Order: sequence, then structure tokens, then C-alpha cells
Amino acid sequence: MDKIKVGIIGATGAVGQRFVQLLADHPWFVLTELAASDRSAGKPYGEAANWLLPEPMPESVRSTTVREIAPNLDCEIVFSALPGDVAGPVEEAMAAAGSVVCSNASSFRMAPDVPLLIPEVNPEHLGLLATQRQRRGWRGCIVTNPNCTATGLVAALKPLQDAFGLRRVFVVSMQAISGAGYPGVASLDIVDNVIPYIGGEESKMETEPRKMLGRLDGDHIAEADFRISAHCNRVAVREGHTECVSVEFGRKATAEEIKLAWQGYRGLPQRLGLPTAPEKFIDARPEQNRPQPLRDRDAGRGMTTTVGRLRPCPLLEWKFVLLSHNTLRGAAGGSVLNAELMAVQGYFSQRPGS
Amino acid sequence: MDKIKVGIIGATGAVGQRFVQLLADHPWFVLTELAASDRSAGKPYGEAANWLLPEPMPESVRSTTVREIAPNLDCEIVFSALPGDVAGPVEEAMAAAGSVVCSNASSFRMAPDVPLLIPEVNPEHLGLLATQRQRRGWRGCIVTNPNCTATGLVAALKPLQDAFGLRRVFVVSMQAISGAGYPGVASLDIVDNVIPYIGGEESKMETEPRKMLGRLDGDHIAEADFRISAHCNRVAVREGHTECVSVEFGRKATAEEIKLAWQGYRGLPQRLGLPTAPEKFIDARPEQNRPQPLRDRDAGRGMTTTVGRLRPCPLLEWKFVLLSHNTLRGAAGGSVLNAELMAVQGYFSQRPGS
Amino acid sequence: MDKIKVGIIGATGAVGQRFVQLLADHPWFVLTELAASDRSAGKPYGEAANWLLPEPMPESVRSTTVREIAPNLDCEIVFSALPGDVAGPVEEAMAAAGSVVCSNASSFRMAPDVPLLIPEVNPEHLGLLATQRQRRGWRGCIVTNPNCTATGLVAALKPLQDAFGLRRVFVVSMQAISGAGYPGVASLDIVDNVIPYIGGEESKMETEPRKMLGRLDGDHIAEADFRISAHCNRVAVREGHTECVSVEFGRKATAEEIKLAWQGYRGLPQRLGLPTAPEKFIDARPEQNRPQPLRDRDAGRGMTTTVGRLRPCPLLEWKFVLLSHNTLRGAAGGSVLNAELMAVQGYFSQRPGS
Amino acid sequence: MDKIKVGIIGATGAVGQRFVQLLADHPWFVLTELAASDRSAGKPYGEAANWLLPEPMPESVRSTTVREIAPNLDCEIVFSALPGDVAGPVEEAMAAAGSVVCSNASSFRMAPDVPLLIPEVNPEHLGLLATQRQRRGWRGCIVTNPNCTATGLVAALKPLQDAFGLRRVFVVSMQAISGAGYPGVASLDIVDNVIPYIGGEESKMETEPRKMLGRLDGDHIAEADFRISAHCNRVAVREGHTECVSVEFGRKATAEEIKLAWQGYRGLPQRLGLPTAPEKFIDARPEQNRPQPLRDRDAGRGMTTTVGRLRPCPLLEWKFVLLSHNTLRGAAGGSVLNAELMAVQGYFSQRPGS
Repeated sequence: MDKIKVGIIGATGAVGQRFVQLLADHPWFVLTELAASDRSAGKPYGEAANWLLPEPMPESVRSTTVREIAPNLDCEIVFSALPGDVAGPVEEAMAAAGSVVCSNASSFRMAPDVPLLIPEVNPEHLGLLATQRQRRGWRGCIVTNPNCTATGLVAALKPLQDAFGLRRVFVVSMQAISGAGYPGVASLDIVDNVIPYIGGEESKMETEPRKMLGRLDGDHIAEADFRISAHCNRVAVREGHTECVSVEFGRKATAEEIKLAWQGYRGLPQRLGLPTAPEKFIDARPEQNRPQPLRDRDAGRGMTTTVGRLRPCPLLEWKFVLLSHNTLRGAAGGSVLNAELMAVQGYFSQRPGS
Repeated sequence: MDKIKVGIIGATGAVGQRFVQLLADHPWFVLTELAASDRSAGKPYGEAANWLLPEPMPESVRSTTVREIAPNLDCEIVFSALPGDVAGPVEEAMAAAGSVVCSNASSFRMAPDVPLLIPEVNPEHLGLLATQRQRRGWRGCIVTNPNCTATGLVAALKPLQDAFGLRRVFVVSMQAISGAGYPGVASLDIVDNVIPYIGGEESKMETEPRKMLGRLDGDHIAEADFRISAHCNRVAVREGHTECVSVEFGRKATAEEIKLAWQGYRGLPQRLGLPTAPEKFIDARPEQNRPQPLRDRDAGRGMTTTVGRLRPCPLLEWKFVLLSHNTLRGAAGGSVLNAELMAVQGYFSQRPGS
Repeated sequence: MDKIKVGIIGATGAVGQRFVQLLADHPWFVLTELAASDRSAGKPYGEAANWLLPEPMPESVRSTTVREIAPNLDCEIVFSALPGDVAGPVEEAMAAAGSVVCSNASSFRMAPDVPLLIPEVNPEHLGLLATQRQRRGWRGCIVTNPNCTATGLVAALKPLQDAFGLRRVFVVSMQAISGAGYPGVASLDIVDNVIPYIGGEESKMETEPRKMLGRLDGDHIAEADFRISAHCNRVAVREGHTECVSVEFGRKATAEEIKLAWQGYRGLPQRLGLPTAPEKFIDARPEQNRPQPLRDRDAGRGMTTTVGRLRPCPLLEWKFVLLSHNTLRGAAGGSVLNAELMAVQGYFSQRPGS
Repeated sequence: MDKIKVGIIGATGAVGQRFVQLLADHPWFVLTELAASDRSAGKPYGEAANWLLPEPMPESVRSTTVREIAPNLDCEIVFSALPGDVAGPVEEAMAAAGSVVCSNASSFRMAPDVPLLIPEVNPEHLGLLATQRQRRGWRGCIVTNPNCTATGLVAALKPLQDAFGLRRVFVVSMQAISGAGYPGVASLDIVDNVIPYIGGEESKMETEPRKMLGRLDGDHIAEADFRISAHCNRVAVREGHTECVSVEFGRKATAEEIKLAWQGYRGLPQRLGLPTAPEKFIDARPEQNRPQPLRDRDAGRGMTTTVGRLRPCPLLEWKFVLLSHNTLRGAAGGSVLNAELMAVQGYFSQRPGS
């Protein structure tokens, strides 16, 4: 097959850089367009981007000229790393003009005809796209990936929902500074400190999971019927969101059954061997002090969700801790995996393997 | 009045240093004895202690010779900053020999005849001392203060229990490194990391509050009848434990009623004007991103518990965040306040004000 | 005496807040004006300022209306906490209109007729003001305090210059994040990192000390004749600049002589008892691992410079480490002390003590 | 060739773990022995070692039984990760019994007949081994790698010494917490702090470079004739030592010549293609704010030394900043590279490539 042309909008920001890193040498996609705000447009990417990642900037993008964000980009897929407050109209224009927009922004996540997708969790939600195109009259479409904190939670819950049903979920997050982009969190606000507030985050945590764990019902998603309460905090960690979870199931479960549900879970991307899919969707660790962001965030090249500390909860039924890499699985990596799933399902001009 | 002679056992450790700081210039107490392990005994305190606090070591203790820990110390009150695994037998021997032991250790906290005391919360629990002396045949006695994390939780809950009753409490802590003493948490374990586990902490959090919020019933405490679930985490903060709390009351309450309950609460130490008592036991802040450890831990010289972010909880009824200084209110300060309460109630040879 | 009216320009920023803290309850000065950018003007200070300090905002300023920055402020002294790139014309206009501007900005520091003042070091440089007024035709005047990193260095060097003369100075700084203001350093740039570059800092370090340690010669300063080389770094510390210094003197000195020179140094502010002056201008500590920012920055309420680790240098003659609080002694505190010195020397309508 | 059997003594500690990581899948060496203190001996490595690295423990060592440290280990090369205070006698016994000991400890570094080796810098110093064996009568031998902070400095200086000669070097380090091992630096000592003291470090920095940059003269090393002064500091960085350097050469050099000397330098390991050798021994970066530990420590898989910020020094001649990974290039990686060099030079029973 020829590679599928892809572009990134918001390519110079923190999440944009993660997209660059994942797409610079992708087996199915070729990165043809880097677009960003007017301030960057026209400059070589190596100069426009204040590169933040420890790994060096891929050589191949260094001299690429940054384009303006406009619907005429030369690519079939557009990965959107735009901030939520500007993403909406831009993504809409691009989808209307024919692009498949894989968006990390929140603008369309809860729209009834837009898939909010984790390929291991709800690949069948792509079925909404027929409705989306018909209703909106777009030649392209929009597919979204969830909020970084909701991503890890839903990953850990999905095997449990399948096995035992879900009734109530309590979650408290300790989120990494990279989740706020760059410059993002001021060092004076976080060194020797915790900020027990992240604007808009808790409501995302309390709505997105119910959509993702819901059932495709013709032209819409019937949301999963469980209740969820979230507290969100920022801590002085670079990457990796830690979440303390208590959960009540639809039927009783033993610790062994729960661990088995996690360890045995294999998603569609694992079965299809998608390039960005980790070997293990969930890794359940036995140590009493894991997962930890520093030591577990890079599991499965940042695409595995690590769980641990399973123990009874005096209030609901079980407690555990989960860890998810917020800018890989929870942002750029999740979005790229969405596109890979669409690729094998024939949404693009080329189909891998054919 | 003459000042009451007091001593500290475990005087060179992290909590011991806080005791020294609070007692070096106390209006009612005079610090006559500093005792520590054999390794330190015989040395001047200024040399034996690796002083950890930002404020300088009080001049008055610099040349004091550190004593061995033994029941013959020349003091009426013994403040115990010993680690939980060695405190038990030592404190027992001292109480038997006639000392009033105000202990920060966990050994006796849950003993049925030992008060687990926060003077603003359950001063009447001192009534257990009669039983304690009678049963154990001690000339002295033991009074304990709670675990540092339980302290802040109980402080925030007490006004709510009084006003609305308590049914269920969910709490997730983000605890400061100073809570583990010195050297305590290795920097390689916490820089750019969270540790979602603190040995023994969750069980303390799930038992101590029910005793403290219980009712003195003759010779024992009838524990309060509510359920509590705790997740405990260590974060890269020097001082100040942050706790995310969800709560269900016995009767419905509005946000206004809850804030009023907090703001209007005045404990016995405030009414008595005890020297270490803060003006406000609880400070309810209006900002949406407070409390924060860096900015609120020193409220009321570290003795005020700060609460904030009150909002509805989709699972229980209300959510909020609290912040408590773990080595002041949650350790040495709490213990000194206990002794001050006992002083005005006539437990010692001298009574302040008389 | 009546109190002297003072105002702050740039009152809402990080250094502005330190000025507010120091002036809200000053024995000689009354804070009548808080001025800031158009964005803040018209709002109550409590709302306009994102308060960053651990200590609470003084009650007295909470409802003060923030003014626009303009020459008609109702005050005799203007403390300037403006950023260097906008301070120049504003300060000039105010001095021309009659204000005594005590500026923390860099714009005028190296102007030949402007005092660059540390009252313990070069109080006689105020003698430049006669020339300044005459040449510029201003009714008011401008007095500056040095760069925060230069401040600590000059403090430590002054007693040594007096005693032994100075030939060569090598200095490497490890500077606190508060030195960059707010939001200043992004947390993604400094957590688990060092930034070995601070724009413009090294050239300030290599020029300002020679002026401050120079001699007033009629209408100008004859710069001190020694050479200095500086490397400046940013580290993950909240407050307090640490500096490693190697020095060669004009004549040989022993370790004892050097310590004596530091310990025995008493500046004019100490002799005059100025309110903001610390008891000790320099504190020379004996421990081999001090000074440290965490443990020494608050010495003398942030106005003492702490030195330590004096030892021979294989290249120059002696090595030592110094620590100076960068937003107190190195910014707002230094500026307030300058105004206090001017007050007792009769530069204002009221003279303290008369 | 068959692989050469190697063992690690001190295998469970922080540096020991880095050795395990580098040797678990080495093309020339097979890891047959993991030895540690009595406390660990007899346990499987997976249980004995508190694994500290972000990358997971290699599966192959998980069940290896940890051996006691004794001269009868079944291996030809012994990598020593022992602490300096116990390494001496143990290493000596092993060398006497026939092992080639590649030691990261300081015990023998300055012994006149022991090579202190960086293969890119002074491979010819292996010539001391003939003298060593003859004098000491050992069947094996000891080869050491330098102190982690001296390693980076010597790497950056070597190309400059070759090109311009060296007269005087001033260096101030900001060292990572991993340099102190585990548990090492207490978090209470380093969060929001700098410690301007590391025991014994400065004297190593002022002696080891002169030996490494010296000339093999028959049976000893004629030390290089330049002077060096070091200040050593600990900062809150996980990995990577940053060093600010000023230097005076034997002859004048331009910035271009210096950059050329760095960029053009190729060591023997690069020419030989040793497995652990980085492509670039030195990487000279053009950005004004690099190198930084977070962003440059992993260059060349932690084996490249990054330099930058070259600019004139008002005191000596040139200033620059360098960054070196302290537990890879500066410890285990350096030691493994030493063994690789010895392998191709025929010191072992097998010679790679033959």
C-alpha cells in the first residue's frame, strides 16, 4: 500500500509535539502537513516549535515549513491538537471540506453523532459516522478521543463492566503538569504544592465515561447506566495521571475474578495488531505500592494502563489505583490508534495489508 | 503559677524537633528534658539533632544534654515523638511511673481506655482517664493525638456531624513527605512521582475518626456510626496533607448550611484561649482552587484546618477539599494542645490562671 | 512624625506583592497607592492580584482600588516593581513630576548619575542625587537596588573588599524560580531539570557589583577595579539564590581573618536601626553543608545574607557559598531599606525620629 | 565467539541495577553472576532488588539467585558497583584470584598502577596493567572508571586539551540525586532546596582529571599540568550532572576552533564500533539554553556528553556548560565500555570479531 497522508493542526504545542513524535516514522501514515497558528506559519518547524520532549525532535520535520491552519491541507487525515476553545469551528470546517479529523479536543466529544473512541473499548461506536455524515452533510468526519483522565479510567473499567457490570464509581485523580500544555502550569504554582482544581475536568470525568461505556443504538449512544463522582488534582509530576478508584459492580466479584478480568482482556487493536497498540491493554501489577507515574507511565510505550493495589472498599466494593500516560494513551497516542483502527476498517483511500 | 516541667522523648527526630520548637518558649510549660536513643544520649542537643526545620533551632536547647529515654526524667509531662514500633512499652513504663504521657505515636490510640483527643472535637473523652488509671494501676496516664491524616479529616467533619449527622465518608489523601519523618521518603522515590501507598495509613484513617467522633459512655467510647473509605498517597510536598472528601449526611444540607457550620464552629480551646489554639479551628475559603498545601498550611500557625471547593457529589451528597498541617496540627501541635487542655482542667500540679 | 505616603507601581505582580507585604504595616510609611496595568486598574486589589505568597494578603489592601500607573499618584515615594522592559519611561516621568522613585527595575541601574544602592554597602552613593537632579532637571529622583543575584554577591564581598581588597571573583548562581516573576518559569521547564541560562543575568552580575563596590567621586562612581565572571542557572527552588564563589584578594588573608571580617561587619542600617534592616547583615555559618536556600533564606526576615563553606581555592584563593533571599533582600526588601535610609537622611517631608 | 562470562558485585544497588540493565542483553558478555551483601544473598534477584529504574527489570535476571560476594564467582569479568568504603579489599581479593575487575568505586582510582579509564580519552593507560600485575602479583587486574562528575568534565576537556592545551579549569557542578545511590538523598533535604556540599566530591574533581588527561610514562602516569578548582552541589534532578566550566588554554582559541574541536573529536571506541559507544562522544548544541539534564541526559543512550553555551569568560578565557548522564556514562556505562575496549584488545579468553 502507499502510505496515507496525514497532517497535524496545532503541531507546535505540547500535544502537537507528541503527534509529531508518533507520526514521523509511522508504518502506515506519512506526515505531509504541520499546521499551527499564524505566529508559527511560514517558519521551519524546527524553529517554530519550542521542543519540550526529552527525546530529540525527529530530523525529518526540522525543516518542514509550518502551514496556516486551513481546510486545504494536503492530507487525508487531520490530527487535531488544538486547544478546546478554538478547535470547534476549525475542525468542523475541515470535516466539511472532506478531511477525517481525529481530534484530541473536547469540542465534539459529547456530540450525539460523534464517536468518542478508545479502540480497545468501543470500536463499534465508529458506527455513528454514517449518521454524522448524513445529518451534517460533511464529506469528511470527526472522531474524538477522550479527556486524558477519563481515558485511563475507562480503560480500567471496561474489563470490569464486561465481567461484572458497573453501578457506582468514585475517582480522585493526581494529574501530571504536561496535561495542561505549555507553558501551562507555572512552577510557582506546583513546586512543593498540590492544586486541587482543574477547570472543567471533573465534569468531563463524570460524563465521558458513560458515553464510552455505552451501547451503540442505531443513530446514537445509549449511555451506560452507572454513577460517577470525580475529584481532580494537579501534582508535581511530569507525565502520567494517577487515579484512586472505588467501584461497585452489578454483581459480586472476588479479587481473583477482577484480576483475571484485567489480565485476560484483549481489545480489537491487540487482535488486529495495530502499530500503536500495546501488547497489554491493561497491566495489573502485584506490588502493593504500584502503579506509580515515574515507574509505570512508559509501559507499552505509554499505551498500557497499569492497575494495582486492588483491595476491598468499606464503602463501595473494591478500591484500586490506575496509571495512564496522559500525553500518549491519553492524547496523541489515543488519537493515532483511532486512525489506525479506521484504516484497517477501510475508511481511507488505502487499506493496510491490502 | 510556676511553669510545668515537660520533656520530650524522641526529641531529635522530625516530630521531636517540632515539639522543641513549640515548647522552647511556651507560656505554661518549661522544657526540662530532651531524651532520645542511645546514639544521641550524652551529646548536646545542638549536636545530636540534625535540625530539619527552616526556622532556626531555639538557642535555649542548643547546649542541653540529651538524656536516655527512661522513666526517671525530671518532668511532669512527657511528649512522645517516638516511632510507633517502639513507643508502646516505653510510654507504658513512663505512665506507670507517674508521667502524663502526651503521645503522638499510634500504639495506644485505639485502646478502649485511652483518649484519642482533638481538644476542639472531643474534649470530654479525657473522662476515660479515670478508668484508665483504675484499670491499669498507673500513677500517670497516656493521652494520644490522632494520625496526621485522620486529624484534618475529623476537624472538617466534626462541625458537619454536629449539624447534620454523618452516614458515609470517602477520602483520598495526598500526603506530605514530612509525614514519614527523616530521612523518610527517598528523593528517588518522590521527585517526579506519586506513591499511592503508605503502610498502615488507610486502616488508621478508617478507624480513628469513628472513635474520635464517638460518644463517651462511662468507661468507654461508643464509636460513631458511619462508614469511611480511605485511599492514601504520598506526593512531593514538604508539609501539609491535602484530602479530597465526599460525604453523605444524616439529613439533607445546603451549601450555605455547610459553610455556616464550618465558619460558626468554635471549639473549647478557642473559648478557653489555650496558647496553641488557633483563632479559627476551621477556615472555609471561597476560592475555587483552594486549599493548597503551600498557601494554606501555615494558617493559624499551622493549627487551622482549611476547607474549600464545596460542591455537590453525584455519588454521595457533597464534595470538598481539606488541608491540614501534618507536623503541627497533625502531630506536635496537636499533642501540645492536648496538654494545654489538661492543664486548665487541673490535671497537673499547677493550673494556669490560678 | 506623620507617616510618609508611599505607592507601588506594578503592585499586582510577584515583586509587587512582596512590596505590599512589607509596606502594609510599616512604622514610617503608609501605603496610599497601588497602581498596575490597565487590566487591573479599577478593580479592588484583592481581586486584581493573584496572590502568590504563602502568608495571607494583608487585610488592609484587599479593598483598595488599583490605580492606573500615572505621575499623579498621591504619594511621596513610588516603589517600582515594573518589569525592566517597561520601567524606564514610566519611572522617568514620575521622577520628573516630583516622586522619589525607589526602583527594583534594571533600566537606570547603570546610569552614571543614579545610585545603585545597598544601604549596608554604599550609602554614600546617595550623593549622586544632587548631580542627578541638576543634570536632569527632575523635581524627584530615582534610586535603584541591584539585580537579585548581584545583591547577595556584593553583600558577601563588601566586608572582604574593605579588609583585603578584591582582584578576581568567580561566581556561579543557582537561582530560584520566583526570580522570574509569575507565571515566569513553566513547570515543564524546571521539574527534574536545571536551566543553565537566564537572559541578561550574567552581564548584570559582571557589571553591577563593580559600580556598587566603587567609590563616589564627585559627580560619578569610580568603579571598583576587579574582574568578575558569572554563570547563571535556574533550579527548582521557590525562593533564595545560592551562589558558589571563588575569590582572589588584594592581600593574603587567613580563614580566620575572613570569618572575622564577615562576622564583624556592621552596616549603617544596623547602626541606625532602620526598621527593615536585619540584626546581622552577614551570617557566617560553621556547618559544612550550609547555606541552603530552604534553611537559610528567611534569616533576618529574608534580609540577611548567609555565607559558609569557606575553604581554599586551588585556582584563586578562597571558595565559599552564599545564600540571599531574592524577592526580599534582592528585590522589595532592598528597595524599602533604601527608602528608609533616605528617610533618616532627610530626603522626605517627614524625618523619622524628629 | 562465545560470550564472555561477567558478574556484578553490589548488584542490587542503584548503580548495580544500571549494570544489570546494560548487561542483560549484551552482544559480547553474558551475565552469569549477581552478587550482593549477605542480606540479599540466596534470594532471587527480582525479590532482593528494590528496582528503581523507570524501565522494567530484565526478565532474564528476575529469578537469578543472588550470590555472596566472594572470589569464586563463575565469571571472567567482575563489574563492581560497591560503595567506596567497602570496595577496596573485596576488589583486591578478586583481582588476586584472577578476575578482571572493572570498578566504579573510588578505592583504586588514584593508585599509580591502576588505569583510570575513559576509552575515548586515555585508552593507552591500559598499558599500566603490565606493571600492575608484575608489582602486585595478581592473576587478574583492576581497571577503574572515574567519578561521575569528573567523567563529564574530562570528556568535554579532552578535545580542547588536544587542540589548545589546558592551563586552568574552574568547574561548578549541579548533581543529580541518583549520584548518591538509594535511598541516598532524603526528599526532605532536596525538595525546594539545593545542598552545596557532597562529601569527598570536590577533591575527586580536582585530582582525577589530571590523571586521566596525563601521559602514560612507562610504569606510571605523568599527570597533566593544569590547575582545577571545583564546587559541587546537589540539586533536585533525577539523572544528569550539569557543570558550569570556565577554562584557560595553553594557546588562544576562537569559538569556531573550539566547536570544531568538539564536533570533530572521535574516540577509539567510535572507530572500533564498541557496542556501548555512542555515535557522538561529544555533542555541541547551538541553543543558548542547553544542555539541560532533562532534555540531554539520554543523548547517545546516556553515553554522549553534551556541551553548549560557549562564550567568553572575563576571568579565564572561555565559559561553557556540560551535561553528562551520571549513572550511565558516569558509572555503569563507563565501566562496561572499559570492558569492551579490553575485549577487543585481547584481555579476555574470547576476542570479539575473531
